[in-house]
Amino acid sequence: MSNIINIAVIGLGQIGIYLLNELNTKKKEIEIKTGKKVNVVAVSARSISKKRKFKVNKKIFFTNPMEIFKSTKIDILFEAIGLSDGISKKVVETALKNKIHVITPNKALISKHGDYLGKLAEDNHVNLEFEASVAGGIPILKTIKEGLATNKISKVYGILNGTTNYILSEMRISKDSFLNVLKKAQKLGYAEPGNPKFDLNGFDAFAKVRILSALSFKTKISKYKCLLEGIEKIELKDIEIASQLDLRIKLLGISEIINGKLFETVHPCLVSKNSYIGNVSGVMNAVILEGKPIGESILQGEGAGPGPTSSSLLSDLLSVLSGNIKKPFGIPNNKRKFIKCYNINNYSNSLYLRFEVKDKPGVLSRITNRLAKYKISVKRLIQTPDKKNNKATVIIITHKTSELNSKKCLSTFKKDVDILNFPTLIRIHN
Amino acid sequence: MSNIINIAVIGLGQIGIYLLNELNTKKKEIEIKTGKKVNVVAVSARSISKKRKFKVNKKIFFTNPMEIFKSTKIDILFEAIGLSDGISKKVVETALKNKIHVITPNKALISKHGDYLGKLAEDNHVNLEFEASVAGGIPILKTIKEGLATNKISKVYGILNGTTNYILSEMRISKDSFLNVLKKAQKLGYAEPGNPKFDLNGFDAFAKVRILSALSFKTKISKYKCLLEGIEKIELKDIEIASQLDLRIKLLGISEIINGKLFETVHPCLVSKNSYIGNVSGVMNAVILEGKPIGESILQGEGAGPGPTSSSLLSDLLSVLSGNIKKPFGIPNNKRKFIKCYNINNYSNSLYLRFEVKDKPGVLSRITNRLAKYKISVKRLIQTPDKKNNKATVIIITHKTSELNSKKCLSTFKKDVDILNFPTLIRIHN
Repeated sequence: MSNIINIAVIGLGQIGIYLLNELNTKKKEIEIKTGKKVNVVAVSARSISKKRKFKVNKKIFFTNPMEIFKSTKIDILFEAIGLSDGISKKVVETALKNKIHVITPNKALISKHGDYLGKLAEDNHVNLEFEASVAGGIPILKTIKEGLATNKISKVYGILNGTTNYILSEMRISKDSFLNVLKKAQKLGYAEPGNPKFDLNGFDAFAKVRILSALSFKTKISKYKCLLEGIEKIELKDIEIASQLDLRIKLLGISEIINGKLFETVHPCLVSKNSYIGNVSGVMNAVILEGKPIGESILQGEGAGPGPTSSSLLSDLLSVLSGNIKKPFGIPNNKRKFIKCYNINNYSNSLYLRFEVKDKPGVLSRITNRLAKYKISVKRLIQTPDKKNNKATVIIITHKTSELNSKKCLSTFKKDVDILNFPTLIRIHN
Repeated sequence: MSNIINIAVIGLGQIGIYLLNELNTKKKEIEIKTGKKVNVVAVSARSISKKRKFKVNKKIFFTNPMEIFKSTKIDILFEAIGLSDGISKKVVETALKNKIHVITPNKALISKHGDYLGKLAEDNHVNLEFEASVAGGIPILKTIKEGLATNKISKVYGILNGTTNYILSEMRISKDSFLNVLKKAQKLGYAEPGNPKFDLNGFDAFAKVRILSALSFKTKISKYKCLLEGIEKIELKDIEIASQLDLRIKLLGISEIINGKLFETVHPCLVSKNSYIGNVSGVMNAVILEGKPIGESILQGEGAGPGPTSSSLLSDLLSVLSGNIKKPFGIPNNKRKFIKCYNINNYSNSLYLRFEVKDKPGVLSRITNRLAKYKISVKRLIQTPDKKNNKATVIIITHKTSELNSKKCLSTFKKDVDILNFPTLIRIHN
């Protein structure tokens, strides 16, 4: 690598434009640290005239990023478009094939095509770095790949999506509804104004879980969808009841090896109000690793936004500038194993069940009888009457039971006319 | 670097012997990750016959480590003796001069001679790595040097000593005295059986603060002792009163830049029971970084013991095996600045003051008058009589006041015969 490094930044959204500014303002600092001068020689976005937070040099602007490869010598390319396929994939693919190092915060791309692109990078002896794809500014991938490199990690979990964590925290604090708080989050820039779906339904967090699994367990990226649930069905009522029970609701991403099989999930969890994870609020992300000999390690920090994301992108840049070629997933691609998926039916948890029922005799006993029939034993039961509406809320905390069992049991309530909604189920984490 | 790497392990205490075993059992894994075969070709300790947890190959045993350099070709040397000077320094110095990479968990050595040894490593184009010297298994140094490399860090603080954190936690939980809990900690291996002084008086934590400062602020290691207080004077009584006030006592190491000057300290702090740091218990360590653009980042994990320490030593090993020479302090030695020390007299905190007084009229007003004279304003005052002994305990929580002021004020109580002990002072963190 020569001492003058040509850089391309593809995608000038919130993150791309912030990165561009950082590359300019930290040029000197990067030179001191690495002895290399970085020059941004090409940028690309759909519109040249769009109003942006920082100025863009129009002389190096390309509306079609593929043109860059033809006209300009690039050493390192930042992909910040963010699609899982299409132009994002094409740009990264072409760059790697042209022996250009790639740095990206694109979790959708890496969680879908990471194995292929990682191999491509290895074959072409260039780096593919994606620290910013998981947990924003927290250097969690570097920690797994390098800092804890020789540990045997058995479980990795945490709060991987700042948007949903903000919404759940804010619903609890403001006692406002999901939809109102979502609007507030969009106003504050914590949730996408157009389509926040991939945050809310857990899809975004699941992409991160997949990347974390692959690194932690040295496996190929899984294609399974074990169990994916978002927060769209969480009601203020559940959050308030949780508080009364000294619990909090968090959207957790969890990945672990159970009996040699991979279990990956994202779903809302009830955790103790006094637990560490129960106290990670707002847009914060937190990742907890369990391994040997390290024990339990926690990393917490801001999980989103252009600042933290740029912090990780620049960390990757320094790593690339250091000159040695790293394996994108820490170990050579051919040593990464395929791993089977754990049968979701066997996943066991204590459950929080909320039934909204007609307030008439026999309903409660029907509920408890059916639970008993499926050997779901009750740890705690709280019935709160709503006399005015002739209704009652029944909260049941169960002992551990399997997914299969609870699914079967709950389905029997579908036809019961005295049960007003399909019961709400939230799993209790440990 | 060839593909067969000769390794020496100097010092076979708890950490050295555990490391030796890890090097043997993880040989294959290291080869997969790095393509290098590591061979331990020399070990050294004072006694060859001492009973150890894992077997040592006597054919490669040296009682005098300096002999190794004469007879054996070494690529990487682990120094695990742990002295700040003497043979530890001599071994590391000689290794670096002989172009041998050095990895060490020795905080005493690095915090005292890190600048000199770092320069020696740079001049000889070898690595000097010391991840394990701060916060055991938490890869905090790598995170500062690489993961958050381009951030501007303004403050770094946390719980840096597992022994004292265990003692403070255990005193609170078991309601037992400092001395009894210390004995228990020694029995459990959490405190050194012979001389736990350097843990208890904050010296160990201070060495880590100095290393963290140098990395975070890109400065030379400071020689100042700003403010260093241990936990020896913390009584169960203070811990219990703290609990009543919803506070907890933690020994914090703090380093920050105030008005362009370096402020480093280790002292017991009162923190909110509900704060993150207030809930880090037992032998856990936690480091909190404040920087731009990253915001606040937290790393938590097991801070001591051979397992976590080895995890960091092996992470350093992999980094060295990757083949590129890193600056020991992240940037070239000649770019690291000297920095002046912040005047400790200006350090301001709210204070917890405990007075043990004779229960007679006028004493309380004398206390409050003197505080007023020094413009220390009282936020909260709790007087608890001990009728039986004709005594009273007066707890005062003050508004913020400077060190100079509080020192001057408290010294006026020395001669007061109605004040039974010199007042206990614990600073309140934020």
